[in-house]
Amino acid sequence: MTDTRLQILGSGSAMPTKTRNQVSQVLSLHNKSFMIDCGEATQVQMVRCSVSVSRLNHIFISHLHGDHCFGLVGLISTLGMKSRTADLYIHSHPALEPLLRPLLNFFCRDLSFRVFFEPYSQSSSEILYEDRSLIVSSFPLKHSLPSSGFLFKEKEKERHVLPEKLKFYRVPVKEIAAIKNGADFITDEGIVVPNAHLTTPPSPSISYAYCSDTVYDEKIIPYIEGVTLLYHEATFLHEHLSKAKATMHTTALQAATIAAKANVNRLLIGHFSARYIDTSPLLKEAQSVFPNTSLVEDGAIFDL
Amino acid sequence: MTDTRLQILGSGSAMPTKTRNQVSQVLSLHNKSFMIDCGEATQVQMVRCSVSVSRLNHIFISHLHGDHCFGLVGLISTLGMKSRTADLYIHSHPALEPLLRPLLNFFCRDLSFRVFFEPYSQSSSEILYEDRSLIVSSFPLKHSLPSSGFLFKEKEKERHVLPEKLKFYRVPVKEIAAIKNGADFITDEGIVVPNAHLTTPPSPSISYAYCSDTVYDEKIIPYIEGVTLLYHEATFLHEHLSKAKATMHTTALQAATIAAKANVNRLLIGHFSARYIDTSPLLKEAQSVFPNTSLVEDGAIFDL
Repeated sequence: MTDTRLQILGSGSAMPTKTRNQVSQVLSLHNKSFMIDCGEATQVQMVRCSVSVSRLNHIFISHLHGDHCFGLVGLISTLGMKSRTADLYIHSHPALEPLLRPLLNFFCRDLSFRVFFEPYSQSSSEILYEDRSLIVSSFPLKHSLPSSGFLFKEKEKERHVLPEKLKFYRVPVKEIAAIKNGADFITDEGIVVPNAHLTTPPSPSISYAYCSDTVYDEKIIPYIEGVTLLYHEATFLHEHLSKAKATMHTTALQAATIAAKANVNRLLIGHFSARYIDTSPLLKEAQSVFPNTSLVEDGAIFDL
Repeated sequence: MTDTRLQILGSGSAMPTKTRNQVSQVLSLHNKSFMIDCGEATQVQMVRCSVSVSRLNHIFISHLHGDHCFGLVGLISTLGMKSRTADLYIHSHPALEPLLRPLLNFFCRDLSFRVFFEPYSQSSSEILYEDRSLIVSSFPLKHSLPSSGFLFKEKEKERHVLPEKLKFYRVPVKEIAAIKNGADFITDEGIVVPNAHLTTPPSPSISYAYCSDTVYDEKIIPYIEGVTLLYHEATFLHEHLSKAKATMHTTALQAATIAAKANVNRLLIGHFSARYIDTSPLLKEAQSVFPNTSLVEDGAIFDL
């Protein structure tokens, strides 16, 4: 699949540092952009990372700590100055709209587009978005307040038809859609041509799971099992496990353990505590358990 | 005076650019820090510019456009994480508290310090802050909504006493404070020693005036007359005067004209429209009228 990538706008945690902004990511696929969390200065990072806003219609907020949502009003305000017209959907805990709507009414009068808050339950898994090729669903995390992870999962793709076989069996055009979806072909003579003779398997479907903020919790494994890419917070080194527990965060070792147990393809870790000036020990710790791990940095792009 | 400086945290206007954040400045004098405006990402800029927050107790908000106040909640939230205890005062239009208080109550529960909103009238000049050595007052600007400038003015300082003269006239210690404030000294014999024999003039008092956002308005001149340093917005080049008028902003030429007419010592211009990638023409334009002009840049420090 072309053009499928995750761009990190903010890789830090609650306290911004000289190099790490508060949390935000943009997942681009199928010519659409989806924002995950929107900490303060997300709009600044979008300018600095040259992220297009024109195809951004959905923002998913994992939980209502400020470092995950303080950038929303500024972003919406600036989108208004760009004369955007497309509706914008903010998927979040129901408490967000009553907090932000008065600010939007005051600071973003005469917006050229509509903002819809789409509340979802953070105690269960819910489908938040679906189109022809993608499903976005939430699943519960365990944090100091209601928090959710997100799973972006491409739907199973169409099988690739073999043009020479279609020609050989004189398959009419109107049958091709069904064949791409796995149907056999029956000739005028009543002979069944198995689908496997006419097609090759579809390209693999891509999936991305985002887990922040949360304690180590194996209950999330069924949701993230086998994903192409997993982002999991790793706020602390395992030597600071007691701090991780007290603040309901995860250590790098724990994030890697989840990745290994969920059999994911690749792990990204981030949301590092501002105490770690040098974050390489966090990477080393995670890689000791799950080698295919990378650190996120502000501005980094990961192709899926 | 030592340690008196203005630090620019954000030099841009409503739309952040790759190099210019939304508006914020910190004026440091007499071991205290005063923030002027607090656009989004101000807390990030404070970290990146190594601005200490420990002596910051007053924030002055010029007007309620988002690029001048969207950083407040994030800044307060982070100050809370640093276990600050000193009260924080936010001087602003009265509409700000009802907008932000619900956010503070939700996102900044259990703050270790108190936040007081201090409303002021934006239609007249008011004293907003006063201590032993400094007065901060507001004065009305003319913008698309109520907007105020701020004048930071050191009080007249004490005269410098001449120790050898005090000794010669045997001036008792209890008289020295009055002499520093200009009193003559009367000897036991009833002879009047004029103050000018005992002292030299005080060090000059420093003043800083901040004017953003506003149209060109000569009515502000009496407030800013003769200041040590004037910051005046210069959102547009004069060739875009019609845009300046339509959005109620000032051109670089106009800002310089105000500086010249108010006979200030030095002019800073900023709040440039994001359209100007190269801002040097704005500087050139202002300097053609008022040579002692500088552009502000994010992170720049100006000693007073």
